[in-house]
Amino acid sequence: MSSSLRPGGIGLRTWLFQLIFESDTRLAKSFDIALISLILVSVTVVMLDSVALLRARHGELFYVMEWGFTLIFTLELALRLYCLDRPLRYLKSFYGIIDLLSILPTWLSLLIPGAQSLLVVRILRVLRVFRVLRLMEFLGEGKILLQSLRRSSRKILLFLFTVLMLVVIFGSLIYLIEPPEAGFTSIPKAVYWAIVTLTTVGYGDITPLTPLGQFLSSMVMIMGYAILAVPTGVFSAEMMRSIREERYSDEACPGCGHEGHERDARYCRRCGTWLDEETPDPHGEKRGDEQTATQ
Amino acid sequence: MSSSLRPGGIGLRTWLFQLIFESDTRLAKSFDIALISLILVSVTVVMLDSVALLRARHGELFYVMEWGFTLIFTLELALRLYCLDRPLRYLKSFYGIIDLLSILPTWLSLLIPGAQSLLVVRILRVLRVFRVLRLMEFLGEGKILLQSLRRSSRKILLFLFTVLMLVVIFGSLIYLIEPPEAGFTSIPKAVYWAIVTLTTVGYGDITPLTPLGQFLSSMVMIMGYAILAVPTGVFSAEMMRSIREERYSDEACPGCGHEGHERDARYCRRCGTWLDEETPDPHGEKRGDEQTATQ
Amino acid sequence: MSSSLRPGGIGLRTWLFQLIFESDTRLAKSFDIALISLILVSVTVVMLDSVALLRARHGELFYVMEWGFTLIFTLELALRLYCLDRPLRYLKSFYGIIDLLSILPTWLSLLIPGAQSLLVVRILRVLRVFRVLRLMEFLGEGKILLQSLRRSSRKILLFLFTVLMLVVIFGSLIYLIEPPEAGFTSIPKAVYWAIVTLTTVGYGDITPLTPLGQFLSSMVMIMGYAILAVPTGVFSAEMMRSIREERYSDEACPGCGHEGHERDARYCRRCGTWLDEETPDPHGEKRGDEQTATQ
Amino acid sequence: MSSSLRPGGIGLRTWLFQLIFESDTRLAKSFDIALISLILVSVTVVMLDSVALLRARHGELFYVMEWGFTLIFTLELALRLYCLDRPLRYLKSFYGIIDLLSILPTWLSLLIPGAQSLLVVRILRVLRVFRVLRLMEFLGEGKILLQSLRRSSRKILLFLFTVLMLVVIFGSLIYLIEPPEAGFTSIPKAVYWAIVTLTTVGYGDITPLTPLGQFLSSMVMIMGYAILAVPTGVFSAEMMRSIREERYSDEACPGCGHEGHERDARYCRRCGTWLDEETPDPHGEKRGDEQTATQ
Repeated sequence: MSSSLRPGGIGLRTWLFQLIFESDTRLAKSFDIALISLILVSVTVVMLDSVALLRARHGELFYVMEWGFTLIFTLELALRLYCLDRPLRYLKSFYGIIDLLSILPTWLSLLIPGAQSLLVVRILRVLRVFRVLRLMEFLGEGKILLQSLRRSSRKILLFLFTVLMLVVIFGSLIYLIEPPEAGFTSIPKAVYWAIVTLTTVGYGDITPLTPLGQFLSSMVMIMGYAILAVPTGVFSAEMMRSIREERYSDEACPGCGHEGHERDARYCRRCGTWLDEETPDPHGEKRGDEQTATQ
Repeated sequence: MSSSLRPGGIGLRTWLFQLIFESDTRLAKSFDIALISLILVSVTVVMLDSVALLRARHGELFYVMEWGFTLIFTLELALRLYCLDRPLRYLKSFYGIIDLLSILPTWLSLLIPGAQSLLVVRILRVLRVFRVLRLMEFLGEGKILLQSLRRSSRKILLFLFTVLMLVVIFGSLIYLIEPPEAGFTSIPKAVYWAIVTLTTVGYGDITPLTPLGQFLSSMVMIMGYAILAVPTGVFSAEMMRSIREERYSDEACPGCGHEGHERDARYCRRCGTWLDEETPDPHGEKRGDEQTATQ
Repeated sequence: MSSSLRPGGIGLRTWLFQLIFESDTRLAKSFDIALISLILVSVTVVMLDSVALLRARHGELFYVMEWGFTLIFTLELALRLYCLDRPLRYLKSFYGIIDLLSILPTWLSLLIPGAQSLLVVRILRVLRVFRVLRLMEFLGEGKILLQSLRRSSRKILLFLFTVLMLVVIFGSLIYLIEPPEAGFTSIPKAVYWAIVTLTTVGYGDITPLTPLGQFLSSMVMIMGYAILAVPTGVFSAEMMRSIREERYSDEACPGCGHEGHERDARYCRRCGTWLDEETPDPHGEKRGDEQTATQ
Repeated sequence: MSSSLRPGGIGLRTWLFQLIFESDTRLAKSFDIALISLILVSVTVVMLDSVALLRARHGELFYVMEWGFTLIFTLELALRLYCLDRPLRYLKSFYGIIDLLSILPTWLSLLIPGAQSLLVVRILRVLRVFRVLRLMEFLGEGKILLQSLRRSSRKILLFLFTVLMLVVIFGSLIYLIEPPEAGFTSIPKAVYWAIVTLTTVGYGDITPLTPLGQFLSSMVMIMGYAILAVPTGVFSAEMMRSIREERYSDEACPGCGHEGHERDARYCRRCGTWLDEETPDPHGEKRGDEQTATQ
């Protein structure tokens, strides 16, 4: 949460802010966990409510629960906005929009019948779960994963780009080869088939019927099977680098201020200064003198 | 097996304990292998008995064999309990419950007809096979695998968690987009579809029919194809770390600080210094003197 | 673009050459981006035109746009040929052939009705997109990917070769085992099934019906599941090597022989020796003297 | 080819042996390539002959070609046996059996009508292609692949073993849960379904219909998706080790004869002897003297 949203004074608003937006105190942690639990239950209710059989049997209960969740979430949003100095800025943020969207459908259903079907949006609220992960010790693991993902993102983007071009080209080819009866009625549909095949999903809703089409799709399959190695290899390599770099020290060189030394380095790789301040430099005091002399 | 279950004295019970629970002696090994073989045969019989054709032809044989296995396994369980000091504690353990469950259905079928269909539980007894692996030299390999799994477990859990959220969100989206005729009759079913698609299984029992739905599922497929890189990359990196650590020492050479010596190296491969500080260099003190002299 | 195609003089042709073939100046970059955008739009029109519904509704618009694109691309090709010294050599190059093929179908449709259906070829023009990638900073990433691919290509080829032999053998086996009613009407079709199964695509258009056939295909599936590790492992290993080589120098420290310095390191992180032998150590000769003195 | 089969003298048999079994001379290479080409063509004919349409049209041609191939291969086998000292031993070897099997069906078809359908066995002859790979420079690559496979084989076997137990347990569970109408008519069939699902093949010939069954299969899918990381990670790690170990020198230490030094090692990691014979040991002659003195 950006600190600019935080109220300055001490009192109910500050107390509420710490309760709702932070998770340092025990009470704040309990609030977070209670909120996530409520979100998970409400999402489950939305999901079960979509099952015709359960709706027929427990529809009334679901309806009552739905209004209960909506009232609680509305109250929570009101409190959130109350304890912030710039409530509008929160409403425009990612979580603010989701919070608003997750209560709107129920309120709208009073005016417009059927608006409640949009309640599915509430599912996006489960993204708040990542907040709870912060409470647990998943943070370090997540950081390494994210760092590896960020590092491999450009290579994987380049890969996805190539995949996109492959499916357009192969989709067009199969559209020319196969008769429309096989289901390849248009190029976009043929491209959809190429994606289904290349990613090795293989629904089987559209399959080639001619020998030539089957030969082409065999090629697409083997290609998809083999090039899966690319994103995996890229991510594996970056993951290994991230794990290895956990070795890197955060401390700066006392001589030149250079950062990013490997943890087992003894001399700065920039200026040659002895890094381990607890033991003396085996090359002696002379060098130390010399360094101050030459600088 | 926890040693607190082990009987103290010497005699028939101790002999039985060593035979059944341990695998040091030749006889104990034979017992283990005989037991595993019997389990595999009995599981095969349960499997074959479920095939209508085979049951019609060999039903009587299967019935007799079934009772044979049950009697033997009952005797085995009785001996197990007899030679333990705290038999109840074994009955409450994982293998104890499985042992009991694997004979109960046949005995119950005397009272309640049809209880025998629960015999499938016996299949869990094949888990005892992992015991036999201990006899073979698979232990070292398994240890490295388990260590790598344990190390990557939190990252892979975080990944599975993200996958779960993705399938809920994408399932809900496709539920809104696709008409129920395509099979997306409820959100749970749509989430099932999202799992089938994201994991690249692709049954094809429920497939999108509208262009928008096909576009969305193309996105899910490509996502599932690309993020497979995450668990694989995580496990590859940890596997590599485990293999490296098994082989290379972490200690630096006391002479030049070079790292990455193989565990069995005695001299630094860079400067020739004796690495094992606990025993003296067989090439004598002279070299040591020489080194201190040159510094 | 090979420099031998480039015109020597200064004037309109040189200016055009720089605009069309190079991307150093701001105008040339804009030209590239405009061309790629136009190609993407024209490809989209070809794809949408193949959808029966959209063609019925917007067929006339698509027809007009098609001729517009053809005229622009024809003009572009004419300019390309005009500003080159050896236009024929360009026409015979990969991009030259694609440029020609992408306008021919529309022109031919004046003479031969229906030739326009070959316009799908225009999709190959999207390959020009890789040119635009050069403008963005994807080049470095692509170079590492390509290097890793080149290094693993022989191993992956050997793997694909083995896969090809496996599918021929397993396809022939299933052809012998399964009755033709299951869809295994010929060996080539059975090989197609083996590819669908081994690559884990699993359309389900042809599936084994007999127990023996299902057993055999289970073996093919597990094999396909396990040997996917081969291309991935090969590429991962090569990727890691490429990343490491990009970062770490191969040269050893002249002082202590320590290896694995980062490329931009100036002092050995082990013994503090100046690494760059071509320029003198800014900390002066003194240290150099000192080092020779201590040896 | 084991050297014990090789004829000792000089003459026609030795010349034939070198032509057929070796590939050092230019003529021997040509023979190998001609043989492989012939095998590939004959396999193609067997495959095409199984297509009903092509058989109807070109059946006579296929028949004639078939006899041509059989005569040539019979002659080849006769020559092979003629130039060997122990022909029977070759007939009992892997390639010998395949050679025999690939000509037998055609000869048998003279006696027993229909025996020709066994000609599919000839496909195994394509395994001889691996012989030709030796001619090309694929050998080095193959050696690294094989070494990595051998090293990871035990871990991957352990993995496959666990997979087998998982599919038996999950197959039995789904058999209890799902009604037989869904296709789960017996445990073996349910295990087949579990394999289809866990390996992410997903034919869709048998799919769960009940919500509980769909929940269980979702678990199997996610499990299959995640544990694919295991064989891939194992093989990646071993592959990387193999590539790194290409660094290992084959030369033995001149002091103690120890082998397996890393290529950049300067001192033997066993006895501390200076390894690089071309440049002098920087620690001087003293140590050299000392070493001869202490030995």
